[in-house]
Amino acid sequence: MKAIVIHAAKDLRIEDQDIADPSAGEVQIAMAAGGICGSDLHYYNHGGFGDIRLKQPMVLGHEVAGHITKLGAGVTGLSVGQLVAVSPSRPCGACRYCLEGAANHCLNMRFYGSAMPFPHIQGAFRQVLNADVSQCAVADGLSAAEAAMAEPLAVTLHATRRAGPMLGKSVLVTGCGPIGILSIIAARRAGADHIVATDLSDFTLAMAKQVGADEVINTGHDPHGLDRFRAQKGSFDVLYECSGAAPALAAAIHAMRPRGVIVQLGLGGDMTLPVQALTAKELSLIGSFRFHEEFFTGVSLMQKRLVDVRPLITQTVTLADAEQGFKLASDRSRAVKVQIAFE
Amino acid sequence: MKAIVIHAAKDLRIEDQDIADPSAGEVQIAMAAGGICGSDLHYYNHGGFGDIRLKQPMVLGHEVAGHITKLGAGVTGLSVGQLVAVSPSRPCGACRYCLEGAANHCLNMRFYGSAMPFPHIQGAFRQVLNADVSQCAVADGLSAAEAAMAEPLAVTLHATRRAGPMLGKSVLVTGCGPIGILSIIAARRAGADHIVATDLSDFTLAMAKQVGADEVINTGHDPHGLDRFRAQKGSFDVLYECSGAAPALAAAIHAMRPRGVIVQLGLGGDMTLPVQALTAKELSLIGSFRFHEEFFTGVSLMQKRLVDVRPLITQTVTLADAEQGFKLASDRSRAVKVQIAFE
Amino acid sequence: MKAIVIHAAKDLRIEDQDIADPSAGEVQIAMAAGGICGSDLHYYNHGGFGDIRLKQPMVLGHEVAGHITKLGAGVTGLSVGQLVAVSPSRPCGACRYCLEGAANHCLNMRFYGSAMPFPHIQGAFRQVLNADVSQCAVADGLSAAEAAMAEPLAVTLHATRRAGPMLGKSVLVTGCGPIGILSIIAARRAGADHIVATDLSDFTLAMAKQVGADEVINTGHDPHGLDRFRAQKGSFDVLYECSGAAPALAAAIHAMRPRGVIVQLGLGGDMTLPVQALTAKELSLIGSFRFHEEFFTGVSLMQKRLVDVRPLITQTVTLADAEQGFKLASDRSRAVKVQIAFE
Amino acid sequence: MKAIVIHAAKDLRIEDQDIADPSAGEVQIAMAAGGICGSDLHYYNHGGFGDIRLKQPMVLGHEVAGHITKLGAGVTGLSVGQLVAVSPSRPCGACRYCLEGAANHCLNMRFYGSAMPFPHIQGAFRQVLNADVSQCAVADGLSAAEAAMAEPLAVTLHATRRAGPMLGKSVLVTGCGPIGILSIIAARRAGADHIVATDLSDFTLAMAKQVGADEVINTGHDPHGLDRFRAQKGSFDVLYECSGAAPALAAAIHAMRPRGVIVQLGLGGDMTLPVQALTAKELSLIGSFRFHEEFFTGVSLMQKRLVDVRPLITQTVTLADAEQGFKLASDRSRAVKVQIAFE
Repeated sequence: MKAIVIHAAKDLRIEDQDIADPSAGEVQIAMAAGGICGSDLHYYNHGGFGDIRLKQPMVLGHEVAGHITKLGAGVTGLSVGQLVAVSPSRPCGACRYCLEGAANHCLNMRFYGSAMPFPHIQGAFRQVLNADVSQCAVADGLSAAEAAMAEPLAVTLHATRRAGPMLGKSVLVTGCGPIGILSIIAARRAGADHIVATDLSDFTLAMAKQVGADEVINTGHDPHGLDRFRAQKGSFDVLYECSGAAPALAAAIHAMRPRGVIVQLGLGGDMTLPVQALTAKELSLIGSFRFHEEFFTGVSLMQKRLVDVRPLITQTVTLADAEQGFKLASDRSRAVKVQIAFE
Repeated sequence: MKAIVIHAAKDLRIEDQDIADPSAGEVQIAMAAGGICGSDLHYYNHGGFGDIRLKQPMVLGHEVAGHITKLGAGVTGLSVGQLVAVSPSRPCGACRYCLEGAANHCLNMRFYGSAMPFPHIQGAFRQVLNADVSQCAVADGLSAAEAAMAEPLAVTLHATRRAGPMLGKSVLVTGCGPIGILSIIAARRAGADHIVATDLSDFTLAMAKQVGADEVINTGHDPHGLDRFRAQKGSFDVLYECSGAAPALAAAIHAMRPRGVIVQLGLGGDMTLPVQALTAKELSLIGSFRFHEEFFTGVSLMQKRLVDVRPLITQTVTLADAEQGFKLASDRSRAVKVQIAFE
Repeated sequence: MKAIVIHAAKDLRIEDQDIADPSAGEVQIAMAAGGICGSDLHYYNHGGFGDIRLKQPMVLGHEVAGHITKLGAGVTGLSVGQLVAVSPSRPCGACRYCLEGAANHCLNMRFYGSAMPFPHIQGAFRQVLNADVSQCAVADGLSAAEAAMAEPLAVTLHATRRAGPMLGKSVLVTGCGPIGILSIIAARRAGADHIVATDLSDFTLAMAKQVGADEVINTGHDPHGLDRFRAQKGSFDVLYECSGAAPALAAAIHAMRPRGVIVQLGLGGDMTLPVQALTAKELSLIGSFRFHEEFFTGVSLMQKRLVDVRPLITQTVTLADAEQGFKLASDRSRAVKVQIAFE
Repeated sequence: MKAIVIHAAKDLRIEDQDIADPSAGEVQIAMAAGGICGSDLHYYNHGGFGDIRLKQPMVLGHEVAGHITKLGAGVTGLSVGQLVAVSPSRPCGACRYCLEGAANHCLNMRFYGSAMPFPHIQGAFRQVLNADVSQCAVADGLSAAEAAMAEPLAVTLHATRRAGPMLGKSVLVTGCGPIGILSIIAARRAGADHIVATDLSDFTLAMAKQVGADEVINTGHDPHGLDRFRAQKGSFDVLYECSGAAPALAAAIHAMRPRGVIVQLGLGGDMTLPVQALTAKELSLIGSFRFHEEFFTGVSLMQKRLVDVRPLITQTVTLADAEQGFKLASDRSRAVKVQIAFE
């Protein structure tokens, strides 16, 4: 079987790997669809991000879905042929954070396609994957492409929980890549009222509108576009910060109303921020990182058509063209989510 | 102009009343639609409920919408001809609870059509109503009938906020009168995943299904219908208790999962409850009473079609037939929400 | 070694039992002090409570401390001779509730001295106990008697967390048995301002005063003693309900202010409650059941003298006189906490 | 009567002003004690801070207490001779934030001694002050010096509420000026377990120890002193950031445990922060600004000796020596809180 392996920045290879049998409690999956994520792009374009750097070849990918082809010993409740979305989140289930219900902070996390520990955790962009039953969400009624969106959707559902009450709230989303677009969808699903989105790309802002934003602002063309929300100490109850760009966050801080909540999803290293304004308005800047049980929530919401992620999938490439997909996905003027078809 | 006045149980009269000019800060409204609420029915059928008893004639009604016909001095931002939903919530804005953001507990509340203080607070089932600008939500794009649903919708939006996080939750609704049905809608809008509803009427359960419940149980036909949710210490994260019936709440307590949240909307006097089970599961039984700013949230959500209340309005009667409407509204086998057309 | 075994109501025996070696990960403890709890008394006086009934002989006891006498294989960080408080809470660490940080709802809990599952979970009133390292809190600087108070203290620390913000709050405690007295201490430690306590016993109310209650009311002598707190919709922000008596809770509901929080600790089977008043005031009735990590918090707070439980220990009996201790502990006119000295 | 007026940086004058009679609802107060706050020092040393600059002469001071000398019309419940702590927080009671229970964000706030609006809000460092009854907390049993500490104490009580659950928590305090020291006291009062404090001054760290910090670290002498708290993703549940210094906050972020809460009290303009670490750990950085009802809570806690602020008052100067007091207060190697005696 073939896998997509990153060796260094811009050195992406499609390599043959052996297929192992599924262990007890595992299923074997013929991969169908895999979405390219921002972190995959960081490895591809820069060999890592921040302190996290590639130190050995690593299979990329953590947004995947496929069909079960084999059951390991003792597996019940799943059957060959079923489509499953596969969660890349593999906490140990035994450390202090796992036992506090904070599995995303597991001290021994083995998240697919991550260079954080060494040896790196190999990813899921491979034609055949053995996964634990606990990672599999049966995705009846969904396409493989939709099912592969469960992972980034889960990121935004988790962020929505972190953000607190959403019903009737006024929401700002800064940065309309896949996570920003899904944040709009998640905020709406959780009852947000007025939603404003900002980005530098008209392409992604058009999609923001399509999935439900009430207003969009291209802060490249209109750098003071948020200023009109600053009256009476500010307007927005909630901000999903998805850009990782300090100027976006700084401008948004001034548009937030007192005691507003900023949920920080964008990863952007050090940022210089107007902390005095944040303090005087008593804003809360709350980090949101990955997810855990929200993966299953997302699949369920998609199955009931309470969430529709299909508009985001702007391009699909074959496994052979995977590198082309990575280039496309890096271009926010043309792409939101690019997926790889493994079949 | 005519008004609907309750004198005692079963003594409902349509009476002529004088029309006053709107005071400064008020608008005059030609009433269009008025919904009959459970508390109206209590006055009509029983002359009150619990300790709250009619002591003098009182205009009923607090779910109303109409068109502005006149502006009092100093009114800006509203214009003649506009449809407005009128909030019956009139807190003083100065007592300790108002200043804590708990206006629904105002020590000097003047809620339309309420026999709580004496003299009673006269209601809004009248052809002409003068209301304060702060009570009026412009309802462009809605019908008057929908706009008159803003009040019971607000009750359930408030309850939803009281209930806490809803995204992806498993929800039970006991009692599918108008408040139960709207609770289903509100829970779904706030991101609930699986919703189960119970009632004794197949008619209202059919509507529960129609507005989005995933499962319904007629506990009259199937008294142990909730038992299968009791495995592994219980299933539901959230309960909207809308029946005010102790057996419904008691059965639901056993179906709740540990640390689940019960939001109590139904008013039913004293109730005998399995408090030991509630304690051992660490459930939270949280009262929810009326609403305040959620009235405006509800109008906005309806205007965006994020909430659709139209299916609930099962019958509309003319002002002349108002008493017939009260009888209809008391019959859960045929009616959910009965409205009076005032025009 | 000897253990205190309950066979049926009023049939308490001191029996010889074999001593096993500590397993890997365990320590062997020479028991020093054991406190008699309300649930021990229920088994002794009534053979159980509610649906939970004795079906086989069971060693009682779950409030214990003693000195380490032997280390099982692989034990590090503890040494022979140390005084340890032993937590009776033994969750499985693997079920859904354990992984949500709600270990007290473990589906496989083995809590000392509990007839809940069958076979029953044998308790800790025994001269020699083997306990897992994870149950042991080193209690340097405390007496064994104090260390044995860690368990009921933990119950009230957990309740305090369930009750929410406490700083500057006005607090009512109904029922001044050991849990009520410790609730006063815990509420004060968490920053409560004004604390009022009620009971039927002047003896326990005197202790309530001693540990810091600002006011006490004997509702036997003064049944309307709480009425003066009912003005302006009520006075108390927080209630610790420790009596399990419906009249106490009902009276307290009327003395609570809107949106107040009632944390229910007392176990009293079915209770008839003024749910309409609870609903209209939007009170929260929140169950609190046992504890988990608060056990260790309690030991630490005692060690720093931030909490002083010593006044509660009103009597100590020898192992030979254990039954006398059970009788004493049942008499609220003379006793708060009765302990057994095992050495 | 004399008042302390700032005209520009380093231009502090003691000037004569007229005495007005108290209006209806006001009392006249002979000032007894006034504490010099960090913002007073900013005006004195720099003519303002951040965007807030002196544009006209302004009486300084907002931490004051004195004795009532005269009652305005209609005043009841207060009497001549009483010692009162005077809250400088004067919200309008009518704007949206006041009605949401967020009076500290009042759109029309008139906080004593603040150059924020123009004309500036004159302060309370004056021999005679007329104050509204609602600002006055009767301080029986306290010295005037203690009563004048109610204001900074309230700042930290408010921050403690913002910080969320404190019982048994591990707390870090960065910056041990008066607000840092009072944060230690407030955190302890709210049930914190282990408290660590950092600063650059051994003098203030000695006071941190005296009021209850378990450990102190002089990060000037020991710049990596917090590193040992970084194991296992970090140690502290809660941080009170009282320094306003980006390096202190950045170092603390790495010592916080996942999902920890940082309450930001220090005002330091723009700060460059490791937002990626904050995000990956899902920390919450929460602003805390002033206070409102906590002023009265603080007086009550002091009266019950549940909080003791007396150790902080390191120096007291006469009104004639006020400028000397400002110089002293600027020197963290010798002073924590410097007060002016007005009598």
